[in-house]
Amino acid sequence: MKNLSDKDKSNDGATPLLQRGAGGEVRIGIINVSDRASKGIYEDLPGKAIVSTLNEYIMGDWEQEYAIVPDEQHLIEQMMIEMADIKNCCLIITSGGTGPALRDVTPEATEAVCTKMLPGFGEQMRRESLKYVSTAILSRQTAGIRNETLIVNLPGKPKAIRQCLDAVFPAIPYCIDLLNGPFIECRSEVIQIFRPA
Amino acid sequence: MKNLSDKDKSNDGATPLLQRGAGGEVRIGIINVSDRASKGIYEDLPGKAIVSTLNEYIMGDWEQEYAIVPDEQHLIEQMMIEMADIKNCCLIITSGGTGPALRDVTPEATEAVCTKMLPGFGEQMRRESLKYVSTAILSRQTAGIRNETLIVNLPGKPKAIRQCLDAVFPAIPYCIDLLNGPFIECRSEVIQIFRPA
Amino acid sequence: MKNLSDKDKSNDGATPLLQRGAGGEVRIGIINVSDRASKGIYEDLPGKAIVSTLNEYIMGDWEQEYAIVPDEQHLIEQMMIEMADIKNCCLIITSGGTGPALRDVTPEATEAVCTKMLPGFGEQMRRESLKYVSTAILSRQTAGIRNETLIVNLPGKPKAIRQCLDAVFPAIPYCIDLLNGPFIECRSEVIQIFRPA
Repeated sequence: MKNLSDKDKSNDGATPLLQRGAGGEVRIGIINVSDRASKGIYEDLPGKAIVSTLNEYIMGDWEQEYAIVPDEQHLIEQMMIEMADIKNCCLIITSGGTGPALRDVTPEATEAVCTKMLPGFGEQMRRESLKYVSTAILSRQTAGIRNETLIVNLPGKPKAIRQCLDAVFPAIPYCIDLLNGPFIECRSEVIQIFRPA
Repeated sequence: MKNLSDKDKSNDGATPLLQRGAGGEVRIGIINVSDRASKGIYEDLPGKAIVSTLNEYIMGDWEQEYAIVPDEQHLIEQMMIEMADIKNCCLIITSGGTGPALRDVTPEATEAVCTKMLPGFGEQMRRESLKYVSTAILSRQTAGIRNETLIVNLPGKPKAIRQCLDAVFPAIPYCIDLLNGPFIECRSEVIQIFRPA
Repeated sequence: MKNLSDKDKSNDGATPLLQRGAGGEVRIGIINVSDRASKGIYEDLPGKAIVSTLNEYIMGDWEQEYAIVPDEQHLIEQMMIEMADIKNCCLIITSGGTGPALRDVTPEATEAVCTKMLPGFGEQMRRESLKYVSTAILSRQTAGIRNETLIVNLPGKPKAIRQCLDAVFPAIPYCIDLLNGPFIECRSEVIQIFRPA
């Protein structure tokens, strides 16, 4: 484990850690939140866009937990909890359900299951999307931490997914270090991640 | 009604829709929050600035609901609820009461009546105001949605009102589309609104 | 007292004001939140960095209240309450405990004791820090108001402390004016503070 700055990182027995830490495997949960994709009306393009982007970024193996769920808050929460607490994912990435419409509830689900919110992710993704569309301010994307799992909301459109991931992923491996997760190495020619000295 | 992206927009009978939708009339609520204006000590310049700016932006007719209320949270909430639920406004714009002082409670009233918050509006307005004054970070302006009504807080100074409206209005007509509201058309030589394809 | 814009600033007897106001003394609380510094394992560099920066900024005398506390939410809250309510500080500045790790709880303590949050401070500090490190989005720094005391979270690293203070301090003296606090004058050759006309 790396020196994790001015903090006592002992787990205090509060949460069972199943094979977490620098030597553990990298397991990432991907949840496509969409009424239509969950019914098979739409092809799951957002989920595929996330997987192919992570394959480009991450050096070495990583395992995926994968789900398509409708825009129902309790179902989204249930899947996040399962991926975080049982499947032991260090990172969960959602797509879709972050707009202002009645059935957009992904940020609400995220906030409900998280123990800490990270407002900087939403700020950064909206700022990035504003370079392309002035409706970026309608996005309610956020990120938070459930115990030792980072949860990040992405938009539903594949092109916007890549723009947002490029904007926030540089900070994700170090965040997972701070949460006692596996050490993620990335291809520097694809994405410049950063770990403070 | 337009194709509203990957969502089921059916109302499920939860909220009665009185003449909403693409064919409905554009009704906008304007609330000037100010102790002094509500007592007649000050002229209501902020409210007038909002009306004249909307007249410049919007093509075609729109109806206004108009109120001046003191900086009392329950009175602001009551007026927002009336304009949203009874008067059927698709948009409510407030001015004033967003600073750090004891009696500034407009954001609290907004959050109390809204079912969803849209943090991107406050971020964008503060970023815009920071171009002019470093005290812009003191503003707590926010925006949110009450059922199918968008509520946006503006500052109290007429000049700052125009700067903030210019910064966020491009996203407002599309937001109202997503909330099943009327289709608002704007003068492109005055304001460049955006609707994703 | 200065003209405080369109607001009735009378205290209404709700909070006892002990020598506050334009003629009062400038008392500032500094809280270094750190498990290791509180045990004496680390030297308190963050606290010293804050004091020396404020000495550079502020013209004339100011008094400090000073504390080093471990990363325990209730101890941080207790110290903030003491400095605000009993020691009568117009401003409290914390360092450390704002990251995503399990024991980082300074923002939670701040939110728990504050009556109003000021999201613009966190936005501005993260935007500033992003010029240097892409992990700035992991910071959860915030600011808020407890009655008539402004509380601002800074990061724990001395270099980042100066960057963040330079970014937000220009708005702080005017904020304290609005909270009926003492009139703080600064050295314009060091920091350009701003008070709207």
